[in-house]
Amino acid sequence: MASSAAPEPTAHPDTPRATAPQGSRAQANAQPGIIRVGVIGGGQLARMMVPPAIHLGLRISVLAEGEGMSAARAADAVGDYRDPETVFAFADTVDVVTFDHEHVPGEILHELERRGKAVHPRPDALQFAQDKILMREKLTELGVPVPDWAAVENEQELQQFIDEHGGRAVVKTARGGYDGKGVRVVSRADEARDWFTALAEDGRGGRLLVEQLVDFVRELSQLVARRPSGEVAAWPVVETVQRDGVCAEVIAPAPVQHASTLDEAARIGHAIAEGIGVTGVLAVEMFETTDGRVLVNELAMRPHNSGHFSIEGSVTSQFEQHLRAVTDLPLGDTSMTAPVAVMINVLGGPAEGPMPVRYAEVLAAHPRAKVHSYDKTPRPGRKVGHVTVTGEDLDTVLAEARAAAHAFD
Amino acid sequence: MASSAAPEPTAHPDTPRATAPQGSRAQANAQPGIIRVGVIGGGQLARMMVPPAIHLGLRISVLAEGEGMSAARAADAVGDYRDPETVFAFADTVDVVTFDHEHVPGEILHELERRGKAVHPRPDALQFAQDKILMREKLTELGVPVPDWAAVENEQELQQFIDEHGGRAVVKTARGGYDGKGVRVVSRADEARDWFTALAEDGRGGRLLVEQLVDFVRELSQLVARRPSGEVAAWPVVETVQRDGVCAEVIAPAPVQHASTLDEAARIGHAIAEGIGVTGVLAVEMFETTDGRVLVNELAMRPHNSGHFSIEGSVTSQFEQHLRAVTDLPLGDTSMTAPVAVMINVLGGPAEGPMPVRYAEVLAAHPRAKVHSYDKTPRPGRKVGHVTVTGEDLDTVLAEARAAAHAFD
Repeated sequence: MASSAAPEPTAHPDTPRATAPQGSRAQANAQPGIIRVGVIGGGQLARMMVPPAIHLGLRISVLAEGEGMSAARAADAVGDYRDPETVFAFADTVDVVTFDHEHVPGEILHELERRGKAVHPRPDALQFAQDKILMREKLTELGVPVPDWAAVENEQELQQFIDEHGGRAVVKTARGGYDGKGVRVVSRADEARDWFTALAEDGRGGRLLVEQLVDFVRELSQLVARRPSGEVAAWPVVETVQRDGVCAEVIAPAPVQHASTLDEAARIGHAIAEGIGVTGVLAVEMFETTDGRVLVNELAMRPHNSGHFSIEGSVTSQFEQHLRAVTDLPLGDTSMTAPVAVMINVLGGPAEGPMPVRYAEVLAAHPRAKVHSYDKTPRPGRKVGHVTVTGEDLDTVLAEARAAAHAFD
Repeated sequence: MASSAAPEPTAHPDTPRATAPQGSRAQANAQPGIIRVGVIGGGQLARMMVPPAIHLGLRISVLAEGEGMSAARAADAVGDYRDPETVFAFADTVDVVTFDHEHVPGEILHELERRGKAVHPRPDALQFAQDKILMREKLTELGVPVPDWAAVENEQELQQFIDEHGGRAVVKTARGGYDGKGVRVVSRADEARDWFTALAEDGRGGRLLVEQLVDFVRELSQLVARRPSGEVAAWPVVETVQRDGVCAEVIAPAPVQHASTLDEAARIGHAIAEGIGVTGVLAVEMFETTDGRVLVNELAMRPHNSGHFSIEGSVTSQFEQHLRAVTDLPLGDTSMTAPVAVMINVLGGPAEGPMPVRYAEVLAAHPRAKVHSYDKTPRPGRKVGHVTVTGEDLDTVLAEARAAAHAFD
């Protein structure tokens, strides 16, 4: 009779866990054929890196922010990514560090590199996803088309920009925003007064980004992967539909309205990946304007909501490709596995339990739908999962994906 | 600064682990929307159940036999599946128990059911995969075509069968064989003397199974999933190629030689699933004979090597379907995602390291190949991974899959 080992608390975030001294885990030096990837951040992006890591036989670890995170299954450590020693100790257990989000301070990542640890994307590239003003400066330098913008220090400068751009503009905090947070459409500068006050109190001389309101017909996203040795692979440009600042639907590939527009979007994606030296997956969110131009809206240097379709819709998913890229392995084929893939997000509502409560009904009605639950506690508007359907005909696929996803509402 | 939690030893089988008292893990009662699946056995089949569990948001735990098992990532307990208390304690942490292999003693599983635990496949069905003589008796009772067979108690009975079947026959141990182990082609009864001796020493009156040598043109496999409420879903019949008793290649769907043969194979798969009351995935391995008949060779009641193609080749993989079936969720669509999928096993050779040692070369040359490594230490002939390629044309896909898989040799 063998011993029964400790039941593993990380898999059950509702269970108290014992905190053991750091360092009892394997910190062996790299072994040939054993590739260890560490992901900082325990959200659904880290979670969805685990399946391709299992298939490829890579060993993946996650530094999660808390016990109840989406990637609890792979969470080998829990701690604050803003604390240098926590990050350094985690990094010691892996061969390469990558990210679920862009919020790890650059000074910590630079120090990791000084210590000889591989970090991808590298902090010199990641800064352009961490700070929207730096990003606009860099894109302007690269000659990439962006909306008119300015970095403003006070209400006077903001009001001047508003007045010069038709009386309305978009104000964004340079750091920390996501999913529509840190973004406001304003017509008067005092609508951003609280942000200016917070920046003044912060004492670091921060500025706000202000941009023209773009008159767009639709939004596009270009996902590109690049590995340290320079190889680049891009997926087809996709169309994204946002609601309340949150990605709601993705259609892959984007229906062709003007072929030149999609070519331009693809060109921009490559130009940014190479111009910034991105390693890993880069998402470039763009506006297609009423006058047929493409303007860059946002960048993300990690797998992105607009690429979730690729789990089933592409020969190589964005999650597998990100793992290949950050470990400097050859990139996989990014062809579609079907003519069309549609991804619809599932958002938490006021009264629901976890998604599996509805599985008996939803899976029975939608046997072709690929349902993804992030095992997150639902809150109104919170992304708790998504549904992807692939097929031949856009209208059919879109209707099926919407029906399956909305059955969770 | 938050605390750093215990580095998790299960992910690194080369690390000694502390053994903690059983029971410190969540043993909460079932919660709505939280579905906990426990897999007994830590091989690659358990490992490959983890990705779909993550995507569906099911919580999967594994009772592994040892520290270095393929499914170490999900191994929440390590212990002997032949020890009742080890199995009962593991089962207390999950809602349903299923299997990576067929070797858990029936008396333990019956006791689990008496205690009210869901076990799938149920022990009354599983026994037919555990004992080849019981299986032959049951298939004969169901009217399913099988090779001529007998259960023999001694060399005299075996010799008589050999003499009546052309001077050669196949002898199999009733229990414990897999991948060609426990199978011999004999022309004289004394070639099985050691097995008869072992059975006599065992004292339980065991018998050997003897079967006619079947003159077959190829081997086929039918995968079927069935859930407790009775829903059944089958994948297309596939062709399997065995080498040295081990599955080497799978072609899905099986090329049509006589349509009626594939229809008959599918009919047999359904008849067995329903006749035995299988829950979960059932694999029925069959011979297609030179005279156009289909005879059942073996059964497995779990995901099976002949179904690995379905990870990429089917809308719903055998691993996802097994999870759906054992949790009594509606079954997914089993259509192919491409006209053809080919799966080639990667076997350990004499001089290789783990598969990722070759990734730089193999992934660069084969960007469409889906490479799966089981993170197992290579030994000659041991299954350490597989490669799947999907596409339009069988010859092209087969050549690509073989080239990618054999690049690891």
